[in-house]
Amino acid sequence: MTASPSSSGTPAHLLTLAAIVDERLRSLLRAEQDEWTAIDGRLEEVFIELTRIGRGGKRLRAAFCCWGWAGGAGQNSLEAASEAGAEHVLDAATAFELLQTFALIHDDIMDDAATRRGEQTIHAAQSARAEAQSWRGESRRYGEGVALLIGDLSHVYADRLIGNASAQTRQIWDRLRIELNLGQYLDMRSAAAAQLDETTARRVATFKSALYTIVRPLQLGATLAGPVDETVMSQLQAYGVPAGQAFQLKDDLLGILGDPRTVGKPVGHDLREGKPTELLAIAIDRASRAQTEILAEVGRPDLGPDEIAGIVTVLHEVGAIDEIDRRIDELVATSIMAADQLPFTSEVISGLIDLAQYVADRHH
Amino acid sequence: MTASPSSSGTPAHLLTLAAIVDERLRSLLRAEQDEWTAIDGRLEEVFIELTRIGRGGKRLRAAFCCWGWAGGAGQNSLEAASEAGAEHVLDAATAFELLQTFALIHDDIMDDAATRRGEQTIHAAQSARAEAQSWRGESRRYGEGVALLIGDLSHVYADRLIGNASAQTRQIWDRLRIELNLGQYLDMRSAAAAQLDETTARRVATFKSALYTIVRPLQLGATLAGPVDETVMSQLQAYGVPAGQAFQLKDDLLGILGDPRTVGKPVGHDLREGKPTELLAIAIDRASRAQTEILAEVGRPDLGPDEIAGIVTVLHEVGAIDEIDRRIDELVATSIMAADQLPFTSEVISGLIDLAQYVADRHH
Repeated sequence: MTASPSSSGTPAHLLTLAAIVDERLRSLLRAEQDEWTAIDGRLEEVFIELTRIGRGGKRLRAAFCCWGWAGGAGQNSLEAASEAGAEHVLDAATAFELLQTFALIHDDIMDDAATRRGEQTIHAAQSARAEAQSWRGESRRYGEGVALLIGDLSHVYADRLIGNASAQTRQIWDRLRIELNLGQYLDMRSAAAAQLDETTARRVATFKSALYTIVRPLQLGATLAGPVDETVMSQLQAYGVPAGQAFQLKDDLLGILGDPRTVGKPVGHDLREGKPTELLAIAIDRASRAQTEILAEVGRPDLGPDEIAGIVTVLHEVGAIDEIDRRIDELVATSIMAADQLPFTSEVISGLIDLAQYVADRHH
Repeated sequence: MTASPSSSGTPAHLLTLAAIVDERLRSLLRAEQDEWTAIDGRLEEVFIELTRIGRGGKRLRAAFCCWGWAGGAGQNSLEAASEAGAEHVLDAATAFELLQTFALIHDDIMDDAATRRGEQTIHAAQSARAEAQSWRGESRRYGEGVALLIGDLSHVYADRLIGNASAQTRQIWDRLRIELNLGQYLDMRSAAAAQLDETTARRVATFKSALYTIVRPLQLGATLAGPVDETVMSQLQAYGVPAGQAFQLKDDLLGILGDPRTVGKPVGHDLREGKPTELLAIAIDRASRAQTEILAEVGRPDLGPDEIAGIVTVLHEVGAIDEIDRRIDELVATSIMAADQLPFTSEVISGLIDLAQYVADRHH
């Protein structure tokens, strides 16, 4: 890995921003909860659930949004938006986190994930509730229905926070939401149809991680400071695409090798789902006949810990894990070179470099 | 029922508008399909599915939006927006229909409905596809996941068509989406917990039908012609709330007595789901002990045709169906009185009166 003083832990500026975003989220949801609970007491639980799953994120997308604005506005810190009272920037940063919560809630239904951010997922919790109350109908359908609606609601609040903005800002906002949904579709469909080639894996990573997590938040943030020309848009993309791909590659590694207590979601799940990842694509390419047989188990929902461990051993043996580590280093280096070209203050460039290193070397 | 020359069929102006909206929808989805299919051929199917379920609606919300604009702009026909080239009005009208498609796709997952607008629902079709292809994982989860994503995508396109608008317009757009989701939550939760009282039934109807279907589209449409003062907002609400309640009561009747070929969705489904309706609440209030036993079957997902027929007989016997017919008449009369107070041209008022009669006396 690229060595950096900040790469061993979460950058301090990210923690500061996360606290600001968390507070805004809490206060928005609190006000909504009060308003709607006054109309019908049963609505309280909707906001309790959304608040529960909405907290605890790394707030990466919010950070990229704020860095984008700081860059465009000639500012020099991640907290500049807060210090300058730039409400529309903090609103947009919070919007990204509400959108991410929407995406996670819906993804967790599709993957039937049990935990998220260290909490029981909404669909799991609500199914258990319906079961415990002996409610009518099927508990699973009820729990998933509630999660679906709470996700939809989070999507609406995200969009409300963007609200009216410049045409350029809204165009990016609309596009990233389309990319997010289409990326998730390709991800799910490829897993189902066992299309685990590298092209598919990289395309999904580009939509879901590079564009949605880094490039679009940065670009949108920059447009909040004023019109952004095509050159800067491309420079932001040149920084964000490799950083986002590195983020996804690291995510794939964490999903297999990480500590479930730190990662906040089950480890080995990607293998049970048979998600298309570069890691797996490389391994499939390089596997011997015996190894191919072991890899063919990927995508079986009932894989036990021993079988997961056997697959991970193959990933090591064929050098797929080393290859991914190498690619991550290369992508981070490419991203850093692109960051140096940005027409931003040196503080912003240095913050972006920190983040590129962090996303590629994080532990959760 | 209120007698009216136009009440026996769909008003001609609604059919004209529906054709305009259908064409815009088709062309929007076609352009998106071309753009994304060029990136990945597998994305084509997403747009084919959305187009399939997106067509065939009555386009009521689009109509109320266009009437609202015509009223605010001093115009005198439903087609005025089209004739005047008021693109932002037609975009908003189309946005309402994309939002409705999003809501239907997600509702159909929650209700496990098999058909919609005479077509197989997306989740049912996609589950069957995964099954037929022997794809990995659970077919049901795959089908529901695809439908969930296509619904989300429709939501994004709806937002994109609203885009930047006046603060008043966006406020209504945000609020109606929150009301829609919370109304659906109350609906589902009440059915599960067997809370079938009249207050709950009416609250759900207010959120899902009165506000979402009529009041908000009308108000939003009016704001597209310029700022709307509180008096007019209230007048639109005074027209729309009773019309919307009548719409829901009629929907409840059609869901039990309608012809499935015309209604486009299965008849008796509401009884199997145990949805809170005024119809059922009245019957429960008035039922004898023997009738109460029959009504207690409501909410059983495996109700057969004979049992459905038995429940419907009770609804007749206790006079619940007559009572709902009476309430529909009363609500339509209230709505018409309110329409007469609107500061709009007589043509717009007359169009709104036609629609209030139509929603209460339609056959699907």
